Amino acid sequence: MSVLALAGGVGGAKLANGLAGVVPPGALTIAVNTGDDFVHMGLHISPDIDSVTYALAGMNDSVRGWGVADESWAFMDATRRLGGESWFNLGDRDLATHVLRTALLREGTLSSATADIAARLGIGQPIVPMSDDPVRSMIDTDQGEMAFQDYFVRHQCGPRFQSIRFDGAAAARPSAGLVEALDDPALEAIILCPSNPILSIDPILAVPGVRDRLVARRVPCVALSPFIAGQAVKGPAAKIMTELGLPTTPATIARHYDGLIDGLMVDVADAQGWTDDGLVVRSADILMRNVDQQRALAAQMIDFAAALRRAAP
Amino acid sequence: MSVLALAGGVGGAKLANGLAGVVPPGALTIAVNTGDDFVHMGLHISPDIDSVTYALAGMNDSVRGWGVADESWAFMDATRRLGGESWFNLGDRDLATHVLRTALLREGTLSSATADIAARLGIGQPIVPMSDDPVRSMIDTDQGEMAFQDYFVRHQCGPRFQSIRFDGAAAARPSAGLVEALDDPALEAIILCPSNPILSIDPILAVPGVRDRLVARRVPCVALSPFIAGQAVKGPAAKIMTELGLPTTPATIARHYDGLIDGLMVDVADAQGWTDDGLVVRSADILMRNVDQQRALAAQMIDFAAALRRAAP
Repeated sequence: MSVLALAGGVGGAKLANGLAGVVPPGALTIAVNTGDDFVHMGLHISPDIDSVTYALAGMNDSVRGWGVADESWAFMDATRRLGGESWFNLGDRDLATHVLRTALLREGTLSSATADIAARLGIGQPIVPMSDDPVRSMIDTDQGEMAFQDYFVRHQCGPRFQSIRFDGAAAARPSAGLVEALDDPALEAIILCPSNPILSIDPILAVPGVRDRLVARRVPCVALSPFIAGQAVKGPAAKIMTELGLPTTPATIARHYDGLIDGLMVDVADAQGWTDDGLVVRSADILMRNVDQQRALAAQMIDFAAALRRAAP
Repeated sequence: MSVLALAGGVGGAKLANGLAGVVPPGALTIAVNTGDDFVHMGLHISPDIDSVTYALAGMNDSVRGWGVADESWAFMDATRRLGGESWFNLGDRDLATHVLRTALLREGTLSSATADIAARLGIGQPIVPMSDDPVRSMIDTDQGEMAFQDYFVRHQCGPRFQSIRFDGAAAARPSAGLVEALDDPALEAIILCPSNPILSIDPILAVPGVRDRLVARRVPCVALSPFIAGQAVKGPAAKIMTELGLPTTPATIARHYDGLIDGLMVDVADAQGWTDDGLVVRSADILMRNVDQQRALAAQMIDFAAALRRAAP
C-alpha cells in the first residue's frame, strides 16, 4: 500500500504532516509545488518544499503560520541597514536551509537537495519536488504580469488576479520521485491537499505527464477542500476565486478538479444542500488546529480513499 | 596630500579606523589583504575587508574583537541542526554582508562590491582589496599545508607554522584602487598597520608590482609594531614568530620589513635598548583600547611620516 499526496503552501503542509503521522513509513510520497521557487539574493528558495519539510520536522511556526519556530530576524535587520532587498522576509534559521540548498544544488538536483535536507532533519517520508526543471508561476493581474513572489509577497496578493501561467512547464519533466509514486503498483490513494488549487496544485498538474497519469489512474483520488463556510483557512484562495467570479464553495473546488478527483472532503459547514454528479462527498471538521487534528483528518482522507476503492466497480 | 594604509586583521582595522578619523575625507586609501578570503557554503567571505569595513562603519564588536556588534547566532544553530558546516562562525548580521557581497560579485569585481558595501554603510574612505584576482594564503605546517581559514579557524593556529605561500599571487594584478593610491602624485605617507606581517601584510606585498612600487617610493613608509613587550596584542603573530625561531620584538618587525620601511613606531615598553641602522624608531603607548586612542595613534603615525618627509635629503 502506498499513498501519493500533492501539496503546496501551509494548508498542504498541514495535511502532509498528518499523513506522515498515519501512513506507514515508506508508504507515503509527498510531491510538492515548485512553481513558487525563486532565486533571491543568490539563494534558491523553495517555499512550499520548506513548508512541508518544516512541518514534518516539527520545526514549523504554527502561530505565525509559515517559516521556522523560534525564528529571529537579525539578518533582515542587517540587510536593511545595507540597503539590501528586504521585501522578502528571510529568518535567521530559515536562511540556513536556503544556504544549504543553494550549496547542494551546485552538485545535485532539487530532488537530491530536498531529500538530503529532509534526511538531515530526520524525516523518513520522501518529499519530492514536482520537477527538477524550473517551472515558474507567473500571475497575470490588472497591474500586469508578475512573478509569483512579487504577487504573493511584494504585492501581498493585492493586484486583481486574472490568470496564471507556468513558465517552463512545457519543457519540464516530472521528478523521478513523482513518476515513481505515480507508477507504483502498490499505489492505493492519491490525495490532493487543501492547497490553493490554482496557485499550488495546478502547477504540479501542469508538468507534462502528471495530469495524464492522474486521469489514467486506477486508484481513487480524493481532495480536501481549502474552503470552510466560504472562507479560505489561509492565503488568497478566496480572494482569487472571487476575482474570477467563482463562489468560494466546495462546488468550485469540485469543478476545478473535474475529471481528476473521485471524492471531495468538505467541512461540516459546507455539507448541506450541495451535491455534485459523479463525485462522492464526505464531510468532517476540516480545520486543522494542531498535529492531532492533522493526523485525524489524514486518517479520514485515507479511509475515504479506501472506501472509494472498495466501492469501485 | 594623501595617505595609503596597508591593513589586514583586527589590529589593522583599528589603526585604519583611527586614520579614517584624522585624515581628511578623500585623502586616505586603505588597501586590504584578501589572502584570507574564501568561499564557504557558497558565500564569498572577505574577513579582512569586513574587519576594516565594520570598524569604519562603527559596527564592529570591540569586546569579542571580531565581527559585528549585537551579533546573534541563530543561523549557526540552525546550520548545526542541519548537519551543515559549523567550524566557521557566521553571525546572523555578518551573514547579510556575505550574502550581499556574493550577489554583487556575480555582476562585479571584489573592488566594486567592497566599494558598494562601504558606500551603503556610509563610509567615505576608499577600502580597496589588494587585488581583484584570487590570491589564497596557504600555510605549511607540521601537519601539512592547509588553506588559511583551515589553519586559522578550524585548527585555531594550533599546527606549527613553517611557511606561507600565496596561491595565485603570481598571476594577480593589484587592484585599480591600490595602483591609483601607490601612483598618486599627492601621496605623502604609506602606513603599514599593526597587522600580522606574515599573514596579513606579506600577501599584499606578494601581488606583483606592489613591493616594487613600495621599494621605489619617494614618500616615507612607516609601520606600527604589532608587538608590545614580547606579546602580540591579538592573534597568532607571537606564536608564529616563535615557531620560526624569531624573537617577538620590534627588531623582528624591522628585519621583516627591511628595505620597505623608513620608520617604526614601537610601544614605550619596547623603546629602550634597541636601535636599527637606517631605521627611525619612535615610541608611544600603542595599545588602542578605544576609538579615541585609535585616532591619537593614527595622528602620531601621520606626524611620524611627515617628520621623516621633512628630514629627507
